[in-house]
Amino acid sequence: MRLGSVEAGGTKFVCAVGNEDYRTEDETVFPTTTPAETLQKTVDYFKQFDDLKAIGVASFGPIELRHNSDRYGYITNTPKVGWANTDFVGRLKAELDVPICWTTDVNGSAFGEYVVSTLFNEKIDSLTYYTIGTGVGAGTVINGQFVGTLGHPEMGHVALKRHPDDLNFAGICPYHGDCLEGLVSGPTFEARLHKKGQDVPLTDHVWDIMAYYIAQAAMQTTLTLRPNKIVFGGGVISEPFLAKIREQFGELMNDYVAVGDLNDYLVMPLVKNNGSATLGNFALALRAYEK
Amino acid sequence: MRLGSVEAGGTKFVCAVGNEDYRTEDETVFPTTTPAETLQKTVDYFKQFDDLKAIGVASFGPIELRHNSDRYGYITNTPKVGWANTDFVGRLKAELDVPICWTTDVNGSAFGEYVVSTLFNEKIDSLTYYTIGTGVGAGTVINGQFVGTLGHPEMGHVALKRHPDDLNFAGICPYHGDCLEGLVSGPTFEARLHKKGQDVPLTDHVWDIMAYYIAQAAMQTTLTLRPNKIVFGGGVISEPFLAKIREQFGELMNDYVAVGDLNDYLVMPLVKNNGSATLGNFALALRAYEK
Repeated sequence: MRLGSVEAGGTKFVCAVGNEDYRTEDETVFPTTTPAETLQKTVDYFKQFDDLKAIGVASFGPIELRHNSDRYGYITNTPKVGWANTDFVGRLKAELDVPICWTTDVNGSAFGEYVVSTLFNEKIDSLTYYTIGTGVGAGTVINGQFVGTLGHPEMGHVALKRHPDDLNFAGICPYHGDCLEGLVSGPTFEARLHKKGQDVPLTDHVWDIMAYYIAQAAMQTTLTLRPNKIVFGGGVISEPFLAKIREQFGELMNDYVAVGDLNDYLVMPLVKNNGSATLGNFALALRAYEK
Repeated sequence: MRLGSVEAGGTKFVCAVGNEDYRTEDETVFPTTTPAETLQKTVDYFKQFDDLKAIGVASFGPIELRHNSDRYGYITNTPKVGWANTDFVGRLKAELDVPICWTTDVNGSAFGEYVVSTLFNEKIDSLTYYTIGTGVGAGTVINGQFVGTLGHPEMGHVALKRHPDDLNFAGICPYHGDCLEGLVSGPTFEARLHKKGQDVPLTDHVWDIMAYYIAQAAMQTTLTLRPNKIVFGGGVISEPFLAKIREQFGELMNDYVAVGDLNDYLVMPLVKNNGSATLGNFALALRAYEK
């Protein structure tokens, strides 16, 4: 069975087709320009495949995903120039006669990790997937369903207790200043140290400060959702940095609730090379087709 | 149909019977002493009713509510003297041959508010219920199911950004110091001002400080769960205080996501006089019976 995946990012689109084993058979990448041009390329890509059965779309946001809204399928009030109020799903539906599953980028990744975890025989009912990169976001799957009634989560913008060695940094979120994204997203390296994160050695104290904030976010998620595990992806995350996050998480939690071995609870994605979303999109496309 | 409710609190137990319309027909209250004595009184109360079909129990915690645990039905590592590792459900099952639904006190209240909201024709798929009283806790219902895979939420213990006028207060949580419960539970009035909350006028700045923290918790919940509404119960909450919380919430959120009219989003319980849990327990008992 031929299934489609669209990873719609703010800088590039990744379109792919795969099968019901979630293996990618073909893939194309193009830059995100205007909605008209970018969505036309998306449509043209999938028109090559006569036997396409369904498409899963994981998009940057904010997006409207409530089925009872007359703007279902839109990218809504994004600050990305030209993309506010774009009828993404409508544009695809007009030219491609297949079911489409529409969700956020992080929900797509969360679903991919959820599906793969069960394929790997983990007994998983729920997980939260964070991306810590240019922006910070998260999606949660509980029993195969995404969390969020009034809309999708925006877990990148929670408030946090400030680190005593970081009180002079105002944070870079244009909406909240020192929310999670304002304190730990990739561009904070330039704002704090005037260099790129990849050039800041892990011995620099800024990594401890950032680990403290991400550990707090993991603690909020733990105490609010009690998921089976929390997955961290995105360019800022690495296994040595995650080790620091686990250490701070352990101190903050103070054994208040049991989460098992932290090496199995706060984890990197099972799907390597940022592939969680594509795999999740295939799985969501399959679900849309079977409905 | 005769349904039972147990509200098991740290200071008192409220046992009641009602019908499938969730009306209370009889009720008794007794102090929480030893597990043996208190659970015997509970059993004796329900033995009066031959036609009892099921019981909903909403208990103080922490409790084990995972069905796959061999300690399902226990109060686990509570600091309450004598009650750690108490087989609550086992004790009831040994003498009362009816289905029992076992959940936390705040989950019981959350379910009561969820059921009543739908009876009042609100189009509700999810809500979070906070109690702000001697302790702070919360429960969340999504599509009729409680949130929490590894156990029940402990949303009273999240970390928060400190209020600039409150930096010298260390907080009173024995586990985390200045977590939400450590900063806004009822006993913080004695710790901060050496008097009871009921004697502190709403013009006192401490109420603004507490509103700031509770608004942050509401923001975390909003960004993480996107529920239809957040209900606040417990002795610390009043409508004028909730008005302060709404104001701070509006400032913190900065219109980042739409939640509708704050007067309909951050609300007092629909069931008056702390009755949400009893009503929720009847509804959970009915569900246990119908299974």
